[in-house]
Amino acid sequence: MSIAVPQPQTDHIEYVEVTTPRVHNLHHVEILTPKPEESLDFFTRVLGLHETHREGQSVYLRTSGEFGHHSTVLTEAAEPGLGHMGWQVAEADQVDGWARRLEKAGVKHERLAGGSEVAQGDTVRFTTPAGHAMELFYDFERLESPTPSRLLSQPMRFPAPGIGVRRLDHINVTAADVDATRDWHSEVLGFKLREAARTPEGDIGVWMSVTSQVHDLAIMRDGQGRDGRLHHIAYYLDTPEGILRSADIFVDEGTPIDAGPGKHGLTQAFFIYVFEPGGNRVELFSGGYAIHGPDWKPVIWDGANIEKAVVWFGGELPPSFFDVAT
Amino acid sequence: MSIAVPQPQTDHIEYVEVTTPRVHNLHHVEILTPKPEESLDFFTRVLGLHETHREGQSVYLRTSGEFGHHSTVLTEAAEPGLGHMGWQVAEADQVDGWARRLEKAGVKHERLAGGSEVAQGDTVRFTTPAGHAMELFYDFERLESPTPSRLLSQPMRFPAPGIGVRRLDHINVTAADVDATRDWHSEVLGFKLREAARTPEGDIGVWMSVTSQVHDLAIMRDGQGRDGRLHHIAYYLDTPEGILRSADIFVDEGTPIDAGPGKHGLTQAFFIYVFEPGGNRVELFSGGYAIHGPDWKPVIWDGANIEKAVVWFGGELPPSFFDVAT
Amino acid sequence: MSIAVPQPQTDHIEYVEVTTPRVHNLHHVEILTPKPEESLDFFTRVLGLHETHREGQSVYLRTSGEFGHHSTVLTEAAEPGLGHMGWQVAEADQVDGWARRLEKAGVKHERLAGGSEVAQGDTVRFTTPAGHAMELFYDFERLESPTPSRLLSQPMRFPAPGIGVRRLDHINVTAADVDATRDWHSEVLGFKLREAARTPEGDIGVWMSVTSQVHDLAIMRDGQGRDGRLHHIAYYLDTPEGILRSADIFVDEGTPIDAGPGKHGLTQAFFIYVFEPGGNRVELFSGGYAIHGPDWKPVIWDGANIEKAVVWFGGELPPSFFDVAT
Amino acid sequence: MSIAVPQPQTDHIEYVEVTTPRVHNLHHVEILTPKPEESLDFFTRVLGLHETHREGQSVYLRTSGEFGHHSTVLTEAAEPGLGHMGWQVAEADQVDGWARRLEKAGVKHERLAGGSEVAQGDTVRFTTPAGHAMELFYDFERLESPTPSRLLSQPMRFPAPGIGVRRLDHINVTAADVDATRDWHSEVLGFKLREAARTPEGDIGVWMSVTSQVHDLAIMRDGQGRDGRLHHIAYYLDTPEGILRSADIFVDEGTPIDAGPGKHGLTQAFFIYVFEPGGNRVELFSGGYAIHGPDWKPVIWDGANIEKAVVWFGGELPPSFFDVAT
Repeated sequence: MSIAVPQPQTDHIEYVEVTTPRVHNLHHVEILTPKPEESLDFFTRVLGLHETHREGQSVYLRTSGEFGHHSTVLTEAAEPGLGHMGWQVAEADQVDGWARRLEKAGVKHERLAGGSEVAQGDTVRFTTPAGHAMELFYDFERLESPTPSRLLSQPMRFPAPGIGVRRLDHINVTAADVDATRDWHSEVLGFKLREAARTPEGDIGVWMSVTSQVHDLAIMRDGQGRDGRLHHIAYYLDTPEGILRSADIFVDEGTPIDAGPGKHGLTQAFFIYVFEPGGNRVELFSGGYAIHGPDWKPVIWDGANIEKAVVWFGGELPPSFFDVAT
Repeated sequence: MSIAVPQPQTDHIEYVEVTTPRVHNLHHVEILTPKPEESLDFFTRVLGLHETHREGQSVYLRTSGEFGHHSTVLTEAAEPGLGHMGWQVAEADQVDGWARRLEKAGVKHERLAGGSEVAQGDTVRFTTPAGHAMELFYDFERLESPTPSRLLSQPMRFPAPGIGVRRLDHINVTAADVDATRDWHSEVLGFKLREAARTPEGDIGVWMSVTSQVHDLAIMRDGQGRDGRLHHIAYYLDTPEGILRSADIFVDEGTPIDAGPGKHGLTQAFFIYVFEPGGNRVELFSGGYAIHGPDWKPVIWDGANIEKAVVWFGGELPPSFFDVAT
Repeated sequence: MSIAVPQPQTDHIEYVEVTTPRVHNLHHVEILTPKPEESLDFFTRVLGLHETHREGQSVYLRTSGEFGHHSTVLTEAAEPGLGHMGWQVAEADQVDGWARRLEKAGVKHERLAGGSEVAQGDTVRFTTPAGHAMELFYDFERLESPTPSRLLSQPMRFPAPGIGVRRLDHINVTAADVDATRDWHSEVLGFKLREAARTPEGDIGVWMSVTSQVHDLAIMRDGQGRDGRLHHIAYYLDTPEGILRSADIFVDEGTPIDAGPGKHGLTQAFFIYVFEPGGNRVELFSGGYAIHGPDWKPVIWDGANIEKAVVWFGGELPPSFFDVAT
Repeated sequence: MSIAVPQPQTDHIEYVEVTTPRVHNLHHVEILTPKPEESLDFFTRVLGLHETHREGQSVYLRTSGEFGHHSTVLTEAAEPGLGHMGWQVAEADQVDGWARRLEKAGVKHERLAGGSEVAQGDTVRFTTPAGHAMELFYDFERLESPTPSRLLSQPMRFPAPGIGVRRLDHINVTAADVDATRDWHSEVLGFKLREAARTPEGDIGVWMSVTSQVHDLAIMRDGQGRDGRLHHIAYYLDTPEGILRSADIFVDEGTPIDAGPGKHGLTQAFFIYVFEPGGNRVELFSGGYAIHGPDWKPVIWDGANIEKAVVWFGGELPPSFFDVAT
């Protein structure tokens, strides 16, 4: 697909063609939990997020490193799972363009006026073919902290409580058909494929991004062949040592650890996975690598080297890692 | 400035407007050195880059984390300084567009056919108003390592020699008029302002990026009021602990340390600055923070808080930090 | 001096000669503060010690890594300074022996029955020739935490509040005559010299230990030629990264930083020094090195290399580092 | 057992009773290997030890952090295993005393004159009841490095090659009867029990030390009910991050990893275990904790908490960890 870009309105600077527009970045996730109080305690006291708002069945949270109103929403529900993902678009006036793009691509969607969602501007909302609810918007409220840091790029004063995760990093969802889901996200939303776990029968996992992160979104084959489920959300910590500190805290806290600490070959993630009280899997992530060049050649793990893709070092992943999604 | 994007060639997906095109990422730097052998020894044995080619008066190098043919060129010259910066553009067919854009903006430039520069495709070359040579291109040769890592996203086998810097991170240049240089890079090349050190008489330093890094390019007021000079190039290390290890190595090696280890408030950099034998300043950088949202509000340090911008923690910066450029 | 050790009481195992008895380890310090409430807030909320008791003008504290009743006592006084140092002796029945040893060495001392000091058994108390109050004892109460860790060698549950210092590490005092003070501590108390900063006019600083630490006690030349003053007490953090995290916290808190983060050549300390609200200097320390062999050859820094002894890397030490003691 | 200490020879200082003499510290280990060349390559190129001597079937090595002539001896043999452990005694004239002590305890031993072993002074050599050869000595040659560091307490210039282990840390041996072996080491050699894994049928592992380390010597129940075998030797790295870096190197090198990286509850070790080419297990160790007080209450893991003793965090230990000794 190629999009010719016309003469700009300004008369002094010539245009540059942009072939593939991309959504710009993951902004927030809404997580459903049947145990809202326990989940809230875990996200705030243990992970170290801060509550910024509550409304209806939802509590709004952000980390110590985020200026926006929230990056995480906990919503009470009968079952755990993903409420929706919120993605920002690159420029303030692109929401209409994305609505038209979805229209043309045959994706059913709805427009939400600014303010329909807490702190969020004009929005287009839809469900991906693999069944995950997604919202695109540009405007989002910034929230000043009552305890601002003297470090002006850091919203809140040190130290963060608990583990003190720094920011929402990525989301990992499951799908029945990974290949088709990968292609759709690439073609319609502009995601670039960064790494894949590939079998002769197709990809069993893909790691994609629109930023210089190795992944903003991962799609893995669902263990039960279903669509629309969540594998995990991930928060970033600045260093592997932070992950080790979190492991000490999780063990002492009695938090169920699904896997890690360890390092995947895939994405070079230094990871730990735990289950929050509502049943959703949460990853704390450090390491990885930056992809700045536009010409990245996707890393394909197949055959003999898939084992190193899954575990570069550390213990084997438990069956639950492959079976449990919410 | 706003660029309306027309109907795409494909008939099934609608366009999204892109207002401001941006160069895509810093790719390599060419450094001039009057002591080419000593500089080469330093970049390879101490910093841990690998030589991939030599031709004419130049030696081509890359780090253990880079797949491209080179990220650093050392070129013999009478005086130290910046040869040129190489930036990639976002898509393969954008070089023409950027040439037209420069033409319209009144920037004198020349086209270089692929192969004119080692390993590099079609290129447009020009000098910024502040006097720094810049090349824009998309295609660049990938080079397989003779000792590939089993970690497929890592080009070379562990461990790296010496300090083992991971990748080229950013470049910091000086200019006589920071405000004008900032605006030109923003308007013509699409750089976003991330942080600034601001006085009533104008900005004395700006940190700008086209990626999610807090800076790919910094512009600081030249201590002698000149244009076209280099303050430093910077390589990335994964952790602050890596910076501390590098400090041990530099001190034992007798490498002149200009400043650090320490942490700037600006960019949250955990840094160390040294002089390579040719006289150019090199920074090793870790930390910083990611800016994923498109709506970042630039961090402005002024008045009383400029002191914390310069040194968040660690010793004061020496006069040489402000006086010496090459 | 040589002490022949006689036939043991047990008839089945022969004796081994012990030439020089040594006090066994630093146990606690009492710090005087004219601002007891501010000091307490700093030691608990910022450094992360826990209050275990208060009595009279004193508050008793310990770190999250200590099983004993306290390692730090804050006592209200008109001026800041050292109350006393508490050292344990190697075996339960050695307190009498140490009293006799002091008697023979002509050191005026007093015996305190168990319980005279909070949580502390039979004690001999004296003042060193350089004017520092010292107590020797063996028995000390162990205190169970109300929130014990599942990690049985860790007294309290993770995470510690604030910086979370792990344990009291060493003490640094000043003296008018370092050479004489060094010899007395070596001859009478069994301290081994590990490192020294030496000038033709004598040592200006000595780092001594009775454990495998590079120093339990340092003695530096007093900037005003006085005796009996405190340069600093030091707490241990497990990693240099912990020191960097503490620096972030101190700066945001507005804690006055005297020096660091940086690394001394002397002791290989990765350090940061701050002033607690009462005016006493506190160091957070990581790194260093273990001395396990009994035949360590003291490291002597003199002439040209004294500069590297003081600062291996990091900013220069400020004049206050050399001038201010309490 | 209690040893009354008599009047010292010096007439000015009174004696202090020493109840239990202790060997002073682990100094070196001799490892048997059926693949001497491959083992040497591994210890030097991968672990980063330096060869200092070779003689007969042995090669002598030390780390970058050790001043002594060697800490590790690789000796060619038909089967892997432990040659001997070398321990220093506390004072130069104690070797005779220890020989007498062993004599009285009924331990068959032999005296070796200084120089019988490379670089080693007068020695008493014996085999423990559990079948491990042990040597006690005081004098050991110091060896200046051809590339001394400017950091005077660091023997060799940075950086170390490969992983760059800092020093020999401890040894872990197996025995058929752990209880009896524990008691013998405590009573005869003065080891203090620090931690134990205890079952109603007796201890299955004990961690003992004579220094402030949590263990210099561990004794674990032999998987085959045999005596005299080696579980592993361990080298120290300054930080957990160093262990993670070693894991990257080991995986890329193809070194067989037995377990880790992970953290034991026992000793708070952050560990990785690998097999060197000769078949012996080698641990790289960081973390742990210091025991400075003389009155440490041994940490006993039993019943439900033994699981946390074995793995505090990280993957389960493989069967090989419990079955394989050499």
